[in-house]
Amino acid sequence: MIPMNTWYVACTPDEIEGKPLGRQICGHRMVLFRGPEGQVAALDDWCPHRGAPLSLGKVCEGKLVCGYHGLQMGCEGKTVAMPGQRVRGFPPVRTYPVVERHGFIWVWPGDAARADAALIPDLFWANNPAWAYGGGLYRIGCGHQLMVDNLMDLTHETYVHADSIGQPEIDEVAPVTRVEGEHVITERHMQNISAPPFWRMALRHNGLADDVPVDRWQVCHFTPPSHVMIEVGVAHAGHGGYHAPAEHKVSSIVVDFITPENDTSIWYFWGMTRNFRPEDAALTAAIREGQGRIFAEDQQMLEQQQANHLRHPTRALLGLNTDAGGVQARRIVERIVAAERALAAAPTPVAGAGAAA
Amino acid sequence: MIPMNTWYVACTPDEIEGKPLGRQICGHRMVLFRGPEGQVAALDDWCPHRGAPLSLGKVCEGKLVCGYHGLQMGCEGKTVAMPGQRVRGFPPVRTYPVVERHGFIWVWPGDAARADAALIPDLFWANNPAWAYGGGLYRIGCGHQLMVDNLMDLTHETYVHADSIGQPEIDEVAPVTRVEGEHVITERHMQNISAPPFWRMALRHNGLADDVPVDRWQVCHFTPPSHVMIEVGVAHAGHGGYHAPAEHKVSSIVVDFITPENDTSIWYFWGMTRNFRPEDAALTAAIREGQGRIFAEDQQMLEQQQANHLRHPTRALLGLNTDAGGVQARRIVERIVAAERALAAAPTPVAGAGAAA
Amino acid sequence: MIPMNTWYVACTPDEIEGKPLGRQICGHRMVLFRGPEGQVAALDDWCPHRGAPLSLGKVCEGKLVCGYHGLQMGCEGKTVAMPGQRVRGFPPVRTYPVVERHGFIWVWPGDAARADAALIPDLFWANNPAWAYGGGLYRIGCGHQLMVDNLMDLTHETYVHADSIGQPEIDEVAPVTRVEGEHVITERHMQNISAPPFWRMALRHNGLADDVPVDRWQVCHFTPPSHVMIEVGVAHAGHGGYHAPAEHKVSSIVVDFITPENDTSIWYFWGMTRNFRPEDAALTAAIREGQGRIFAEDQQMLEQQQANHLRHPTRALLGLNTDAGGVQARRIVERIVAAERALAAAPTPVAGAGAAA
Repeated sequence: MIPMNTWYVACTPDEIEGKPLGRQICGHRMVLFRGPEGQVAALDDWCPHRGAPLSLGKVCEGKLVCGYHGLQMGCEGKTVAMPGQRVRGFPPVRTYPVVERHGFIWVWPGDAARADAALIPDLFWANNPAWAYGGGLYRIGCGHQLMVDNLMDLTHETYVHADSIGQPEIDEVAPVTRVEGEHVITERHMQNISAPPFWRMALRHNGLADDVPVDRWQVCHFTPPSHVMIEVGVAHAGHGGYHAPAEHKVSSIVVDFITPENDTSIWYFWGMTRNFRPEDAALTAAIREGQGRIFAEDQQMLEQQQANHLRHPTRALLGLNTDAGGVQARRIVERIVAAERALAAAPTPVAGAGAAA
Repeated sequence: MIPMNTWYVACTPDEIEGKPLGRQICGHRMVLFRGPEGQVAALDDWCPHRGAPLSLGKVCEGKLVCGYHGLQMGCEGKTVAMPGQRVRGFPPVRTYPVVERHGFIWVWPGDAARADAALIPDLFWANNPAWAYGGGLYRIGCGHQLMVDNLMDLTHETYVHADSIGQPEIDEVAPVTRVEGEHVITERHMQNISAPPFWRMALRHNGLADDVPVDRWQVCHFTPPSHVMIEVGVAHAGHGGYHAPAEHKVSSIVVDFITPENDTSIWYFWGMTRNFRPEDAALTAAIREGQGRIFAEDQQMLEQQQANHLRHPTRALLGLNTDAGGVQARRIVERIVAAERALAAAPTPVAGAGAAA
Repeated sequence: MIPMNTWYVACTPDEIEGKPLGRQICGHRMVLFRGPEGQVAALDDWCPHRGAPLSLGKVCEGKLVCGYHGLQMGCEGKTVAMPGQRVRGFPPVRTYPVVERHGFIWVWPGDAARADAALIPDLFWANNPAWAYGGGLYRIGCGHQLMVDNLMDLTHETYVHADSIGQPEIDEVAPVTRVEGEHVITERHMQNISAPPFWRMALRHNGLADDVPVDRWQVCHFTPPSHVMIEVGVAHAGHGGYHAPAEHKVSSIVVDFITPENDTSIWYFWGMTRNFRPEDAALTAAIREGQGRIFAEDQQMLEQQQANHLRHPTRALLGLNTDAGGVQARRIVERIVAAERALAAAPTPVAGAGAAA
């Protein structure tokens, strides 16, 4: 149940800094590297010579040199040279449309002819100096939909993250979910509560008292295939909460890009972007470290949940009001996958260039 | 070939001290915990909300609180509460009959309607202050019948435990096996031998000379499904051996409860109970440590034997006189399993309460 | 695609020094040990009593004593004794023809009736005091043919072993491959180049200048089932290269015996034999250490290549001129395996002794 004709985050730029990266995405083993003008290429991780993984090689002057016998692969999936060989007849390897944008490398694992860079989500904060982003990557042994469920139902914070961002008050306020086309929004507003440790830290870093009652909000946005952005924040109580003026609140956006490795494991790109003190690199690092520690707490639960589901694949789950965000997201994904299957059964369109600009 | 309508040791009380325990027993993943009056419950390790393992949660006031979203599960397999939810319609999870007795938690993995606490073996020593018990738990990657074979043929001590309880004389005396209903007894009596290291230690701890000839005995008792109790001991030679007066001998009972995790691995609850110096906790600890070290020596052999059998599932084994105990035990288990299958094919009885008292 | 009616190196003598060795060869789990006159025996690793691996036992006076219950197995696969038992009727276990020769233990995993010790390769250097050998053993998770490919195409040295024996000049000279019956020879001669680090070391150890131009050669010899001997060396440039007089060159033979564990993993016996300073044990050790480090560099590439092939079992590979050695070797092996299959389908010959002298 994985949409293929869509953009996923494949990696971050640091992962292909001067070297190739091998990564399985949606069941396809790819190698990513930078070509001669610095553009990113994504190819089948297969040397056409003897089937060695190209990702074990090196990048030299924008060519990917196989680490076994020196075949030089170009960004277009064509062998451009090999010592002592004429390479014109070498079979090409599959390329995947790939785009670098907003600080991420995006790949389209499905039908290249349908790839359109305009479909990459617009991250308004990504290139805005008023905002600072920090994040990381975890590999988690669960299907992408379990991770979306996790992020669209933050009541789990009370239990999984009891020591950091969790607090009983989350449970006490029912979330409200609405669907706008393929956009699912689940929001929860808590009033006049005490801030949990993570937010006390953020208040202090923002020059605000951390020991006074606050209003707290969580607005989760799902968009397909598996992106979840969560507007989170606290304001000193009584100033309007989510709508409070900037001097009374601290807020940020939790950024989650979930890329299936296969049906039961994911590359989880997590992070946070904020619009206060964006120039403060130490604060970025502190938030990143705290978030990394918190998000690591989900791993065991998600992986054991996945294992339980594999043991009992036909057991029904409950869909409570708190699950509405995940349930709606799942429906959208199911519709998309059904449409892709119908499309695959239909006549093929005229093939495009096979790589997005 | 695992009997299901029977009691197995699921765990020891310390394993559910203030927290739930997840354990697979006879192929069923269960969670065990203590309810509000301290009674033990065993449930399917599955939260009816989203399928997370309940064993990752916490026990609060006798309720098992799911570690993911806070669903509160009761001892009867029914959800008793969940923040912000009405839980009356939540589907129950399977419960397993469970009884705490004789210092162990016993579980009945099969048809709950047939569970009868009166079928739990009567361990006469368990609640008798004249006896002291110490033991431990190993997970071993072999089927339960290989472990029963091991315990019903102690000639292996000469080879596997050469440095502790093994001695050539064991080999030199043929064991005698008899069957009494579902009870298999294999016994061996060695006369006028020197005591091996473990028994020299026991003699010394019991105030007896350890450097004189002894008579030694091993009386192995198998009862279904996979319990083996071994009366073991030495007496100064010439005083009657097994029947010698107490002042000339030191003896104890090796206690083995073998609980299948699945077809090829077991939870091996091993221990020893003795009726000399029962108040001596240091002696209990010393024996326990020695026994733990000795019983660990079997692990590699049993696991490699199991692996060999999986490679060659149809190869015949020899059934020598020394194997008679294991062979007879296997026949009894086969009859029990055949009877269970016949029962399962027959009309179901009226279901009982589903939990033993 | 593994020839069975042939000799493979099973182990080296040190591996059965005073103890049995369990090893899987061509899918058969064997136990190897020395019998009463020091002769080597290879048996099925299965005790006929209860199916325990005999390799967990001990060797006592040339008998293999099972580590579980003391059954004593003889070199002919027959139980010779067991405490308290009459063993005459015990079923024998399979024996494999086995021969100790040239410093290796050779085993014939196929039809014992066809085993002929005269078919063991003649290693002229093995018992010659003018030559010294040092080597080691790696287990590598790839099929034997991938390792043969590796050794018959040394262009990989430039990439995999760039820091030791690799150099760009290898790529620049095309290898020439010829087939003589079941013998495949691939040779490459490089002229007037600088010696790479490994050879500079060898030149110095041989009392030759290491900073002058050299001629370098590599002559790879494949013989079935999977033996590769490589004549390698350098001579000070202009003295005739491979044919230069001894005082101007340093040379040796890379010795590779590749024994399939199963279809996708091998026991790789690697080594080097040289005819200079054979008495210098420190030099032998230094070369062995250097070679071990270099050959370890292939492991990741070979294992990842194997994994890639398993993912895409039907994808075609290129067969370039540099691959000719491996390609020809593969054809020979395919012919041998086809002939074995035809033989297996034909009437069986009268069975021989079942063990080679």
